[in-house]
Amino acid sequence: MQDDFSEADRRGLYRAIHTRRDVRSSFTGEQINDESLVRILDAAHHAPSVGFSQPWDFVLIRKAATRKKIKESFDAATAAAASELDSGRRSKYMSLKLEGIMEAPLNICITYDRGRFGPFVIGRSSIPDTGVYSVCCAVQNLWLAARAEGIGVGWVSILSQDDLRAALGLPDKIVPVAYLCLGHVGEFARKPDLESAGWLPRMKLGDVVHYERWGARTDPQWSAIEDMIRRNIA
Amino acid sequence: MQDDFSEADRRGLYRAIHTRRDVRSSFTGEQINDESLVRILDAAHHAPSVGFSQPWDFVLIRKAATRKKIKESFDAATAAAASELDSGRRSKYMSLKLEGIMEAPLNICITYDRGRFGPFVIGRSSIPDTGVYSVCCAVQNLWLAARAEGIGVGWVSILSQDDLRAALGLPDKIVPVAYLCLGHVGEFARKPDLESAGWLPRMKLGDVVHYERWGARTDPQWSAIEDMIRRNIA
Repeated sequence: MQDDFSEADRRGLYRAIHTRRDVRSSFTGEQINDESLVRILDAAHHAPSVGFSQPWDFVLIRKAATRKKIKESFDAATAAAASELDSGRRSKYMSLKLEGIMEAPLNICITYDRGRFGPFVIGRSSIPDTGVYSVCCAVQNLWLAARAEGIGVGWVSILSQDDLRAALGLPDKIVPVAYLCLGHVGEFARKPDLESAGWLPRMKLGDVVHYERWGARTDPQWSAIEDMIRRNIA
Repeated sequence: MQDDFSEADRRGLYRAIHTRRDVRSSFTGEQINDESLVRILDAAHHAPSVGFSQPWDFVLIRKAATRKKIKESFDAATAAAASELDSGRRSKYMSLKLEGIMEAPLNICITYDRGRFGPFVIGRSSIPDTGVYSVCCAVQNLWLAARAEGIGVGWVSILSQDDLRAALGLPDKIVPVAYLCLGHVGEFARKPDLESAGWLPRMKLGDVVHYERWGARTDPQWSAIEDMIRRNIA
């Protein structure tokens, strides 16, 4: 195929994938360049979507008054979540920095519109959630593009969807899927914060791969791949 | 920030994002290189995940007998979906090529395990679906990595989740999120198939961007961005 990627092209993609971080601190406050932001949004808009339904919207938020309401929702939801934990894990949980809503210069809420181009959307009849899945693919495109532009992104999910609807004026039919905080950062950490903090370890690739059917961790037809995964050649 | 991306790195990422296609035909039958497959899986495994829960699994499927069962599920689900349409759209729908289950040399089912590292997962208490969202981000990483390796991916969602569970031996607690067909292709189309077929148009970026709150399509504070989006500078 003539259209193939060069080594340099591939390296750029893999670099974005492997150095992308979920950023909650170290926002510098520097404003995001307008051209960068448009490229990031355009990348998100070029995600795959079920039946080409493109069911996403992007609400861009800079106003402090709006962000303050979201921060209040986060504080309430964090307290509720902490009450589920025993005292040891609770104090560790409360010590983690889990959002940068006010520090990041830009917040973006990405939403799902189930009515877009509907009611019939190709590929959505059997598994209705595929509409939301498309929006998540747009989130990941945005995240990788932001990384390549030197912009950190933090996904804040300790929020009430009702509070988001009220703060942003979302109609009932619109589902808020992701609330993201974007901004330049001092550095991208080498590892995820929750791995560095010892909250959870990174799993090995071999622990999440099955051959031909669930639970089959080995298969004679797949021995070359098994061996490469074990040796971590990627 | 010293760690910034070069122009060449950025170009590689954006090239993957903008030339990625949902591929259903033109699989050549050529086998996927083992090293490429491991890099693609490793890219998926480095997706973001709520609370670093890494709730995905990858079932790799080459066996024709398994794929035949999946194809039968697709045929039944397609017929059911077609019955929702009036006769004009139905004949157009039935003329579309919507899967490459048997032609593609590799199928991958990506699943969600709600129990992994649970029951408490940081960030999942308020919006339980965030676990599935993480799996979708892994799908998108896989898709982009495959594109950079010259491998086409088609996401087949016209399937019964119960049929998938039966064919792959998935436990009840495991949710099949994406069923993907992978293989080398003769070419990556310039546009999505459903756009070329005149099924739906691509929306303009300006139609999915809102300023500060839902429905606000203009805002004096955002005029520079509005203008760039209108001129399509991305």
